[in-house]
Amino acid sequence: MSQIGVIMGSDSDYKVMEESIKVLREFELDFEVKISSAHRTLERTVDWVKAFEAQGGKLIIAAAGLAAHLPGVVAGATTLPVIGVPLSSGVMEGIDALYSIVQMPPGIPVATVGIGAARNAALLAVQVLAVEDKPLSIKVKNYRAQMMKDIEAKDEALQKRLSEG
Amino acid sequence: MSQIGVIMGSDSDYKVMEESIKVLREFELDFEVKISSAHRTLERTVDWVKAFEAQGGKLIIAAAGLAAHLPGVVAGATTLPVIGVPLSSGVMEGIDALYSIVQMPPGIPVATVGIGAARNAALLAVQVLAVEDKPLSIKVKNYRAQMMKDIEAKDEALQKRLSEG
Amino acid sequence: MSQIGVIMGSDSDYKVMEESIKVLREFELDFEVKISSAHRTLERTVDWVKAFEAQGGKLIIAAAGLAAHLPGVVAGATTLPVIGVPLSSGVMEGIDALYSIVQMPPGIPVATVGIGAARNAALLAVQVLAVEDKPLSIKVKNYRAQMMKDIEAKDEALQKRLSEG
Amino acid sequence: MSQIGVIMGSDSDYKVMEESIKVLREFELDFEVKISSAHRTLERTVDWVKAFEAQGGKLIIAAAGLAAHLPGVVAGATTLPVIGVPLSSGVMEGIDALYSIVQMPPGIPVATVGIGAARNAALLAVQVLAVEDKPLSIKVKNYRAQMMKDIEAKDEALQKRLSEG
Amino acid sequence: MSQIGVIMGSDSDYKVMEESIKVLREFELDFEVKISSAHRTLERTVDWVKAFEAQGGKLIIAAAGLAAHLPGVVAGATTLPVIGVPLSSGVMEGIDALYSIVQMPPGIPVATVGIGAARNAALLAVQVLAVEDKPLSIKVKNYRAQMMKDIEAKDEALQKRLSEG
Amino acid sequence: MSQIGVIMGSDSDYKVMEESIKVLREFELDFEVKISSAHRTLERTVDWVKAFEAQGGKLIIAAAGLAAHLPGVVAGATTLPVIGVPLSSGVMEGIDALYSIVQMPPGIPVATVGIGAARNAALLAVQVLAVEDKPLSIKVKNYRAQMMKDIEAKDEALQKRLSEG
Amino acid sequence: MSQIGVIMGSDSDYKVMEESIKVLREFELDFEVKISSAHRTLERTVDWVKAFEAQGGKLIIAAAGLAAHLPGVVAGATTLPVIGVPLSSGVMEGIDALYSIVQMPPGIPVATVGIGAARNAALLAVQVLAVEDKPLSIKVKNYRAQMMKDIEAKDEALQKRLSEG
Amino acid sequence: MSQIGVIMGSDSDYKVMEESIKVLREFELDFEVKISSAHRTLERTVDWVKAFEAQGGKLIIAAAGLAAHLPGVVAGATTLPVIGVPLSSGVMEGIDALYSIVQMPPGIPVATVGIGAARNAALLAVQVLAVEDKPLSIKVKNYRAQMMKDIEAKDEALQKRLSEG
Repeated sequence: MSQIGVIMGSDSDYKVMEESIKVLREFELDFEVKISSAHRTLERTVDWVKAFEAQGGKLIIAAAGLAAHLPGVVAGATTLPVIGVPLSSGVMEGIDALYSIVQMPPGIPVATVGIGAARNAALLAVQVLAVEDKPLSIKVKNYRAQMMKDIEAKDEALQKRLSEG
Repeated sequence: MSQIGVIMGSDSDYKVMEESIKVLREFELDFEVKISSAHRTLERTVDWVKAFEAQGGKLIIAAAGLAAHLPGVVAGATTLPVIGVPLSSGVMEGIDALYSIVQMPPGIPVATVGIGAARNAALLAVQVLAVEDKPLSIKVKNYRAQMMKDIEAKDEALQKRLSEG
Repeated sequence: MSQIGVIMGSDSDYKVMEESIKVLREFELDFEVKISSAHRTLERTVDWVKAFEAQGGKLIIAAAGLAAHLPGVVAGATTLPVIGVPLSSGVMEGIDALYSIVQMPPGIPVATVGIGAARNAALLAVQVLAVEDKPLSIKVKNYRAQMMKDIEAKDEALQKRLSEG
Repeated sequence: MSQIGVIMGSDSDYKVMEESIKVLREFELDFEVKISSAHRTLERTVDWVKAFEAQGGKLIIAAAGLAAHLPGVVAGATTLPVIGVPLSSGVMEGIDALYSIVQMPPGIPVATVGIGAARNAALLAVQVLAVEDKPLSIKVKNYRAQMMKDIEAKDEALQKRLSEG
Repeated sequence: MSQIGVIMGSDSDYKVMEESIKVLREFELDFEVKISSAHRTLERTVDWVKAFEAQGGKLIIAAAGLAAHLPGVVAGATTLPVIGVPLSSGVMEGIDALYSIVQMPPGIPVATVGIGAARNAALLAVQVLAVEDKPLSIKVKNYRAQMMKDIEAKDEALQKRLSEG
Repeated sequence: MSQIGVIMGSDSDYKVMEESIKVLREFELDFEVKISSAHRTLERTVDWVKAFEAQGGKLIIAAAGLAAHLPGVVAGATTLPVIGVPLSSGVMEGIDALYSIVQMPPGIPVATVGIGAARNAALLAVQVLAVEDKPLSIKVKNYRAQMMKDIEAKDEALQKRLSEG
Repeated sequence: MSQIGVIMGSDSDYKVMEESIKVLREFELDFEVKISSAHRTLERTVDWVKAFEAQGGKLIIAAAGLAAHLPGVVAGATTLPVIGVPLSSGVMEGIDALYSIVQMPPGIPVATVGIGAARNAALLAVQVLAVEDKPLSIKVKNYRAQMMKDIEAKDEALQKRLSEG
Repeated sequence: MSQIGVIMGSDSDYKVMEESIKVLREFELDFEVKISSAHRTLERTVDWVKAFEAQGGKLIIAAAGLAAHLPGVVAGATTLPVIGVPLSSGVMEGIDALYSIVQMPPGIPVATVGIGAARNAALLAVQVLAVEDKPLSIKVKNYRAQMMKDIEAKDEALQKRLSEG
């Protein structure tokens, strides 16, 4: 059973979305990944969303560039929470995708993260699942604590470097 | 039989899209109008598109504001030409809709017109149908000639007004 | 016990965020509302976030305009999911707030909805809680079904109006 | 006889517009290509448009960067449908060209595609001609079917890669 | 004989461009005003430009909103200096027109002024004619001196108001 | 005696502005070039502007990037026509400079050309001087004719290349 | 003796800048207000800046809309800290002014506040003077404490209103 | 004792902010540098700000990219003047950071400099401290004088180069 589905419109998006996969693996969550398009394979996309929900899926991460309709189409086909990742593609570098994903009409929200923010999308997914999963919640808190330590270590390294001139 | 389908996501869009209807009536084309959403009634939208194409439809005008996925979703469900009209809605005043409609991924084009340009969408539809319809083509040329005369008349009125001081 | 916390930086934001409250009431969820600033009352804000989490809170909706740091500051102070609502304020009409909320650095995501999208923020919160709450999930599906019926009714009304000429 | 005319303002635009040519060749359509400027060779441009229409041309694709007046000038000189392709050129990377092409005044529409979307421009042209050309329409549907298969193949490749770990 | 031509695409532009007329009258220059469109009456526009140049015209002010091709088309049809005035029209409020006018391709410049800056367009025209016209140059310097006095008077008024508390 | 002054704020701007110099040389105009800043050497800048005007200068081209105050400051210090060239510098790539130059307040116009459009700035200068200089006007017309021939030659080359397959 | 100078380009800016005056009065600082333009009265502006510095002035607040060169010009004429206030004016609503003020070239900084943020400009001025003025520093801390109390009071009022239903 | 604190959210920001350090060293000011995050180490950040103020700190430079909350959070935790430096990071190249920093709500100003303007941030800091420090003020004036000489030298070099042809 997959708890989290990660869907993207093109295999070229995978190089960015691999950051999401890494985080999901780090938190040992069950997930599946799908390439399917909102326009070229609309029915197949909707079928996958419904099958994913039916088998017990809990949340979907959907990534797209340019007009970026995939997250919205997925959100329209399920009542599971959908996290949208705008990808930078072409000369607008993701501004087009950001507007297409975040400005959803009333009734069908998409939880949007920053442009290219695949890692944050996965962390948000983890935080959502952690709401009712105490051990996972503790893992998230440990992950945060580690981030704090990383910053402190970098600060120490800089202090040392500066004091050594 | 309807040659042209006009679809929009909300009845509040109708006050803008009425401009399209007026033009289609002026050119005496058969059309039908549909309110259906890309997210809230996705299957119904796809069903309508397919039924419209099956009954002999030739072209679809799709209008939407905000994230504006409707034109793209319609374009993915048919191989008929789709004309997209970005509508001004909310604080971004249609820039979000413009990007969502025009920046379609490779393979699924949407013929995009200006923000709120319902009249131009219908004229573009007429010009497409006129490609293989000589009498309609003549009507388009007459329509253009009338526009020229209108400008000339306005120019004359201004010259008169200026010369009279 | 409050499941959902709704925090905003100024009481003038309440007139928009009331849309969130309506939705939360419609779904009969326990919530609390807080006015507290990311800058003027930073410690009080952090204290409230920690107290909210400690008493069993599950998710926070944070709304802000202009530089809009509140959602990010809240997200830094908790590992609960945080939904950010950019509010239109001043001449940039919410673009500044959107960028300030959605472009969070790696590690601290904020689930961003559209500018002024208070209703969608609450629906997203409901969808998150519904992941592990079957009865709530059914309510969400019913809510969606009602939206579909509303669109169909509006479409029928338009068809009638058009056929009557 | 050329059915489709492809016009651009500079030979440097050809490297992008070659994508259009490829698609037109793939669909075995008759076309001609023209380099002519809206400003530097205005009369020559208008003469070509009129000659193209007179010899039986059906549709024009016009591409331009920067102020990008060519598609609009072409659209003013004919009643054939005109597809405009904004090209990325200079520091604005095509945003200037997009606005110049899509925001046409009432009466003279240009069917605008995405920035640099030469392939989509040609596919839109094909779809327009397919409205009254059954065999071409079948080719378009086959082309779409092939795109679907490509996505499915890419999805399968990814599933395989992920399962092999 | 008209020294300055003022051309605009629509009589609705006249209410803004009247500011230009006022300045030209103030400097007692000979001018003519024309309504003609870059798209709807292209040939008529080009004919007017050529006739204006032939009769001894020295400079053209061209104003347009939206895609705003008029100044560029005029500039392509003459070697006289052309001053372009982007007009605010529709939801983009003149940004579209500004980009369409200022981003001209190499070889055909348009001297662009600010959005809606009809008064500045006329003053620029006056300054251009004053290059070889000593008495006009003195008038411009007097006009500037008056502007200085106006600011000084406003400053004095404010100082008085503040000191009176 | 210099007819045209070319001023820029930094010697790093020279590599772009050299395009202006080339054009001025091609038209055999007398010019001088100056590096002086609107902020770091304000008085020196104003002194140069006044000296340039006093010695018989006719027109100034002023180029600047970033906040780009130089053209406006020059325009405030003279009644000669000032042509402003926004230069691309830093992450905003000239949009900041464009707005700073074109959006001048009422009373002090700057004739703005496109971002980085040094060649067009010089051509505009030539066109302004040609208003009262018949031989120069003929040179401009010849220059235009040459541009037309260049486009025709490029078109022919493309036709040949396409026909040869 | 004035510690703080407040300069603006037009008396129409005063209605916004009055917010700054109120704050300066509240903190009982000595200030003077000046209307002078960066373009129309450049020398007078520079003279005032130098006189202000000479009489013991410590900091200047400069406000401007549109191309907004005043803060930069003032900053070039003094080494006192200059706070720039971009004002919303015309269709760009202050984005033009923001870029013109904040994107100063290396060497001449302007401390920029938000669009129309006259109150914040004055508070920043107070904070700068408070660096070496203990009593003033205490006043600033009290002002902050009052802002905190205001938010708490508004929160209490909302809690009461919500609990009363 | 440190007079100036320089804080940034990540050690990757140091390569830009080193420009600030260089200027502070050139003016022989006491400073300290800190890496600490507004989100990942919020409390640590606030603690540092308070400790910095308590030990006699006078001014803080805070740099951040993306959502860029650090300068605002620092400004909320102290009444010392805070200079914010928006850093270019990711596809928005610092526009997001600029809006997040400059558009602070009423009551908590941040003195914002240009995108990536680390050198100007430090110069502004120096100018603020120079308000009550005569010798430092003289150094600033000398620094300015040197900038003037640099420009004059570059101008001379260009004049020489041009005259030598």
